[in-house]
Amino acid sequence: MAEVRKPIPVEEAISHVWDHRLNGKAEFVSINDCDNRRLAEDIVAKHPVPPFPKSPYDGFALRSEDTLEADRDNPMTFEVVEHIGAGQLPEKRLHKGQATRIMTGAKIPEDADCIAMFEICQVHEQDNRSFMSVKRTIASGQNIIEKGSEVADGEKLINRGTLISPGTKAVLATFGYSQVKVAKKPVIGVIATGTELLDVDEELKPGKIRNSNAYMITSQIIRAGAEYKYFGKLEDELKTSYETIKQALNEVDILITTGGVSVGDFDLMPAIYEKLDADVLFNKVAMRPGSVTTVAAAGGKLLYGLSGNPSACYVGFELFARPAIQYYLFNQTPFLRRIKAILANDFPKPNPFTRFVRSYITYENGRVNANLAGIDKSNVVTSLAHSNSLMILPGGTRGFKAGDEVEAMLLNDQQGQSEFLLE
Amino acid sequence: MAEVRKPIPVEEAISHVWDHRLNGKAEFVSINDCDNRRLAEDIVAKHPVPPFPKSPYDGFALRSEDTLEADRDNPMTFEVVEHIGAGQLPEKRLHKGQATRIMTGAKIPEDADCIAMFEICQVHEQDNRSFMSVKRTIASGQNIIEKGSEVADGEKLINRGTLISPGTKAVLATFGYSQVKVAKKPVIGVIATGTELLDVDEELKPGKIRNSNAYMITSQIIRAGAEYKYFGKLEDELKTSYETIKQALNEVDILITTGGVSVGDFDLMPAIYEKLDADVLFNKVAMRPGSVTTVAAAGGKLLYGLSGNPSACYVGFELFARPAIQYYLFNQTPFLRRIKAILANDFPKPNPFTRFVRSYITYENGRVNANLAGIDKSNVVTSLAHSNSLMILPGGTRGFKAGDEVEAMLLNDQQGQSEFLLE
Repeated sequence: MAEVRKPIPVEEAISHVWDHRLNGKAEFVSINDCDNRRLAEDIVAKHPVPPFPKSPYDGFALRSEDTLEADRDNPMTFEVVEHIGAGQLPEKRLHKGQATRIMTGAKIPEDADCIAMFEICQVHEQDNRSFMSVKRTIASGQNIIEKGSEVADGEKLINRGTLISPGTKAVLATFGYSQVKVAKKPVIGVIATGTELLDVDEELKPGKIRNSNAYMITSQIIRAGAEYKYFGKLEDELKTSYETIKQALNEVDILITTGGVSVGDFDLMPAIYEKLDADVLFNKVAMRPGSVTTVAAAGGKLLYGLSGNPSACYVGFELFARPAIQYYLFNQTPFLRRIKAILANDFPKPNPFTRFVRSYITYENGRVNANLAGIDKSNVVTSLAHSNSLMILPGGTRGFKAGDEVEAMLLNDQQGQSEFLLE
Repeated sequence: MAEVRKPIPVEEAISHVWDHRLNGKAEFVSINDCDNRRLAEDIVAKHPVPPFPKSPYDGFALRSEDTLEADRDNPMTFEVVEHIGAGQLPEKRLHKGQATRIMTGAKIPEDADCIAMFEICQVHEQDNRSFMSVKRTIASGQNIIEKGSEVADGEKLINRGTLISPGTKAVLATFGYSQVKVAKKPVIGVIATGTELLDVDEELKPGKIRNSNAYMITSQIIRAGAEYKYFGKLEDELKTSYETIKQALNEVDILITTGGVSVGDFDLMPAIYEKLDADVLFNKVAMRPGSVTTVAAAGGKLLYGLSGNPSACYVGFELFARPAIQYYLFNQTPFLRRIKAILANDFPKPNPFTRFVRSYITYENGRVNANLAGIDKSNVVTSLAHSNSLMILPGGTRGFKAGDEVEAMLLNDQQGQSEFLLE
């Protein structure tokens, strides 16, 4: 009665998407606007760190050879010839018996080769001159941070594709990257289809529900680091739907539609792919939820036909769209990080297809637990709000028990992995 | 020679901050702009979900009693009196021997009480009328999603203070929250002090380094969900510094300065707190790095004096400022999530103070490992770029070995915990 589709494994579906993935572009943004962007180039040290030998403490810069005979009974006294703070330059080189009072971060004077911390020094004034004394020998190099000892000039520090975090931004500032070369955000179009859909500000009407998928996906797009363009919702009517989708494709890098991909009487997407002359990469995947997820390629762009069912839509995006966006952003670990965890609840229902189950991760004494996020009905959106991972339950004839080892894909993780499968 | 300060434990320092934490405010934003904001109210179901009984599949709606005598040898035939898609309303109530062709998501017609999926039905046309037949009994309620079976009207779904994720946004859209009541972002002022500091776009000069702390902190502020206001950098000069800081305090909720909090000759912050008549909550904490971290309260505002040392500055913000910001944002778990992990490297250097060591978390067969992020010199910013956690190494007389159990605070986690210490 309906077209019969042959499901393909998730891995195979992903490899089809990968064959058609889009290459990213770079752009420059001010360092003030670079947070949460991804680097489009490796960050390299433009000078040694520190750029000059400096003092890690408040104290006195000395010539170590002048302290050789100092001990508890024989303090050595030095005349303090200069007083410098961080950012001030020492102007005097030290001669025998001279010291420079120096603050943390200041440059070491010429011919000084060690720092005596304040705590071990005595100071006194005499005839309007300043003196200090020490009662111990100080080794050459002691308490001096040598030029380049932290970072050598030209050293590669951060990889292209890295998400810019507070630490990354500090490195960028240190080396004067006032303009930062970052990955351009791909523009992802979103269209919701379905005669049953109301706008979010409409009153509920009999037989209708509000459009939640489009809002959910725009949020997933933002989380993935891309930019969204929302083209509204469409009734299940072929001509208008085809024209809107064709036009939208021109304005975006990737287009995502929700709904209409199944084989129901009002599911128009298959006919639209045909009219667009799009290359349908797959339209049935051996997974739950989201088995009707469709991906097509047209004119060098990717066209995702996600299910109208919220959790199927959510999973379809994370599995097939997010990695392609990450690749566009130069992320070298574009797939969701997949970790092993202990299942915290029973999941007795077997399924022939691989399940991606909404879940959240907890930690217990150094072990990772994966917990079911509410009832796993495929149409319950509420549990999506409490999920931070998708648990992977392989298809088969048996269910799963609390205590079983499972895999989980982390949704808020910034690390990722380079391949879809565990390495 | 210098003022002697008495270090207090980290927990005590945090409880001083907590005594002076600021209460947050709420504001409304469009659902289009609500991503990554925190809810300022509980989200409650404004209607049952689904709002009407609906079909989970494409199939035929029937009266179960009409199928009672159906079996393989005795198919029961029904006249198809209506054909409805999702969003269309059934207009006909079913009488004996009648069926409605119905698509996924559509409302169940009156007097129908079960759905026969397409896969088990035969259809035929006769005299311009449509018929279908089934060869089995279908139970009352089968394949019907009852009104309110997923969410009851008035049910509390998501807590105030929750970060708005894709799943949360879907829930907001479902219930028509076109305007979302979110926590107002507190405005955090940032001032960098230090004569040694150059702007990020300045050429390196002898004895000077670029200001990286201010950029790092603005990024930490963004990560914490607040808004920053940068007042620039100040030379170590008392009058201008005092006036700038006094003025800045008027324009922000919380003010963060970096540098100048130690007891060096050019450390002006202690004098400025005095001139401001600020209540210094503490100025020495038994921790590394960041022992000179200072927090003061003035005019109902918090004034953070973080160290000029980048990693001390970073840790000071995460430990003392971030939880206060989270509280302002109604986050009910405002402290960084603290988990147990296995130390992956030796850390032989003992320290009398608790250490917060830059680290990153990895997962191995269901176990959590905490790895050192590069050399732990307190002035190396590069390793901050590779950190996603702060390992907590208790003070004492011994070092730590790979394999030891340690605690780690997760920097990119969205969960948090309600108290600073492990519960």
